Amino acid sequence: MANHVAGPEIEKLIKLLARLPGLGQRSARRVALHLIKNKDQLLIPLSDAMATAVDKIQVCETCGNVDSANPCTICTDARRDPSLLVVVEDVSDLWALERASVLNAAYHVLGGTLSPLDGIGPDDLNIGGLLARTDKGEIKEIILAVNATVEGQTTAHYITDQLQAQAKQASVINPDFQPIKISQLAHGVPIGGELDYLDEGTLLQAMRSRKEFS
Amino acid sequence: MANHVAGPEIEKLIKLLARLPGLGQRSARRVALHLIKNKDQLLIPLSDAMATAVDKIQVCETCGNVDSANPCTICTDARRDPSLLVVVEDVSDLWALERASVLNAAYHVLGGTLSPLDGIGPDDLNIGGLLARTDKGEIKEIILAVNATVEGQTTAHYITDQLQAQAKQASVINPDFQPIKISQLAHGVPIGGELDYLDEGTLLQAMRSRKEFS
Repeated sequence: MANHVAGPEIEKLIKLLARLPGLGQRSARRVALHLIKNKDQLLIPLSDAMATAVDKIQVCETCGNVDSANPCTICTDARRDPSLLVVVEDVSDLWALERASVLNAAYHVLGGTLSPLDGIGPDDLNIGGLLARTDKGEIKEIILAVNATVEGQTTAHYITDQLQAQAKQASVINPDFQPIKISQLAHGVPIGGELDYLDEGTLLQAMRSRKEFS
Repeated sequence: MANHVAGPEIEKLIKLLARLPGLGQRSARRVALHLIKNKDQLLIPLSDAMATAVDKIQVCETCGNVDSANPCTICTDARRDPSLLVVVEDVSDLWALERASVLNAAYHVLGGTLSPLDGIGPDDLNIGGLLARTDKGEIKEIILAVNATVEGQTTAHYITDQLQAQAKQASVINPDFQPIKISQLAHGVPIGGELDYLDEGTLLQAMRSRKEFS
């Protein structure tokens, strides 16, 4: 705004809010004004919640999840099956699977996907941490719950190769070594999806993976 | 999320973010994760900016603007014409006019519009404050920059009536009293607007208020 009519404090608040995903300059102003108008009900609680987040929230050293505890709540949850590990790209994917209450497994967050064009190689992802976990022998199955994108699939292939190489090495040392089962999410028609609106790739996969009525 | 997988701190942050205008549950989660991932660049500065806002930002007792100073930067700006007062519904309208750098006037924020259905009467708006300002005799012109809605127009009429009653009373005491000029924003076709998409009311006003080429 011209001439700093709203004072530098509000200007700064708007500028920072505009950097949040999904907010632009106009919506940031609207949010700032809403916050200022609802000081007691919203601005103060949100300010406190953010200060707490700054202090407490950290990345879990085991799985890469974000939490106020390290290791995180999921890693220390005794009711979860530690032999089943779900590998996801991002914390948001972990949250999505948890919301769906799909299974009671442990997680491993990669922190992205392999993307040579963006200069993201295996060392930029938490793949070393994954191999360190599988090396301990406790994990029996890994589900690669990566996105159905080219990058996601490339990452899944790379991880599969690495795990198989690790298994090969382990079986040399120990002939009784049981290789880890590796699986991937099914591709197909989403629930509620209409065939007419789906792309050819999805339809092809759905047709190939068709299931017989039992 | 089920079972508080992300810990109560993140849950609380998401819950509060979801109450911001324009954000829902899903975008609040996205924003929360973005904040956590960009702790140094975004979460800490925003947390600080909000704490500063909580401490410093207040409503100007003169005009109803929000600022860190009271009276606000606009009210104390010596370069502004104190004889010209722009009456707006909300601080966001003040900001919009300032962004357009329309004129160098003082403002008065009503804090809403008359709306009997919502139980908002004259006493709920900052109309008393406006009459107190006009009573001092310094203001020569008032521009009612209210929204072109039924409520906005009703409020404009009510304020006009009040100002005229005040002028009448003042002229009884002082026969030389000059009444305050009251004007309103023009209605018409917005710049860039296409006639085909405009409503009949706007077209009617634009036609009635047509201007001759000079």
